Amino acid sequence: MLKVYDDDWFMQQAIAQAELAAAAGEIPVGAIVVSNERIIARGHNQTEQLNDVTAHAEIIALTAAANYLGDKYLHDCTLYVTLEPCVMCAGALAWAQVSRVVYGANDDKRGFMRFGRELLHPKTKLEFGVLHESCGALMSRFFEGKRR
Amino acid sequence: MLKVYDDDWFMQQAIAQAELAAAAGEIPVGAIVVSNERIIARGHNQTEQLNDVTAHAEIIALTAAANYLGDKYLHDCTLYVTLEPCVMCAGALAWAQVSRVVYGANDDKRGFMRFGRELLHPKTKLEFGVLHESCGALMSRFFEGKRR
Repeated sequence: MLKVYDDDWFMQQAIAQAELAAAAGEIPVGAIVVSNERIIARGHNQTEQLNDVTAHAEIIALTAAANYLGDKYLHDCTLYVTLEPCVMCAGALAWAQVSRVVYGANDDKRGFMRFGRELLHPKTKLEFGVLHESCGALMSRFFEGKRR
Repeated sequence: MLKVYDDDWFMQQAIAQAELAAAAGEIPVGAIVVSNERIIARGHNQTEQLNDVTAHAEIIALTAAANYLGDKYLHDCTLYVTLEPCVMCAGALAWAQVSRVVYGANDDKRGFMRFGRELLHPKTKLEFGVLHESCGALMSRFFEGKRR
């Protein structure tokens, strides 16, 4: 069977969320949650707008997904995010027991992988590097703009 | 000068928050944020009531403190929490750059110290073991009740 929606397609939707963040002057990170090939939640970084360090794209998306499902555990869900999650978000994804996490660009300075994938739930599958050039370019453009 | 409010006194206020969680059938964890010897925010675990894995006492307290201060950075603030924070909460406390974190009981299974105190911001001072028996007893009572 032809797969209409693949990881690249879903990551593109996460990038669209990141672009909303960029347009609002926020560090451009976007996330979506997918269940049964359907997007059930979206989020983009809103830490400045909400004056809240916890308002990361992943936190917003997973809270929205839990609301949608009526279940705080996101079994059978994939979270796509444009940037490697931070320690806080990895911890939240672990509590939510998300089935699969897919991220785009690396975040060597703030990403959770400095501490290893055991920050996630043992059952969570992990993939990264999906559309990493587009995801990374979002960040580079944002920080270049800041330096001008 | 006589110190009226000390770490024990503030931890007692965090325990009062944990008791609110217990009364609601939640895992009993409570937190407060103190600035200039004044309690500026309180939180207790509400993950069940809010159906949200991110609704930990610390996250609620630090978001409330940021709202109160109009600043997402909690410089010159101490967060008191009855239980060793998890990885998610340690990550959130790092982003908020909380000046000082004081916790009561250890959480060997879920606590952030498995990964080391570098999960917190480098400027954050850390203390633990304050009223640890009372803090731990809250948890023991809760889980004993569950097993009945």
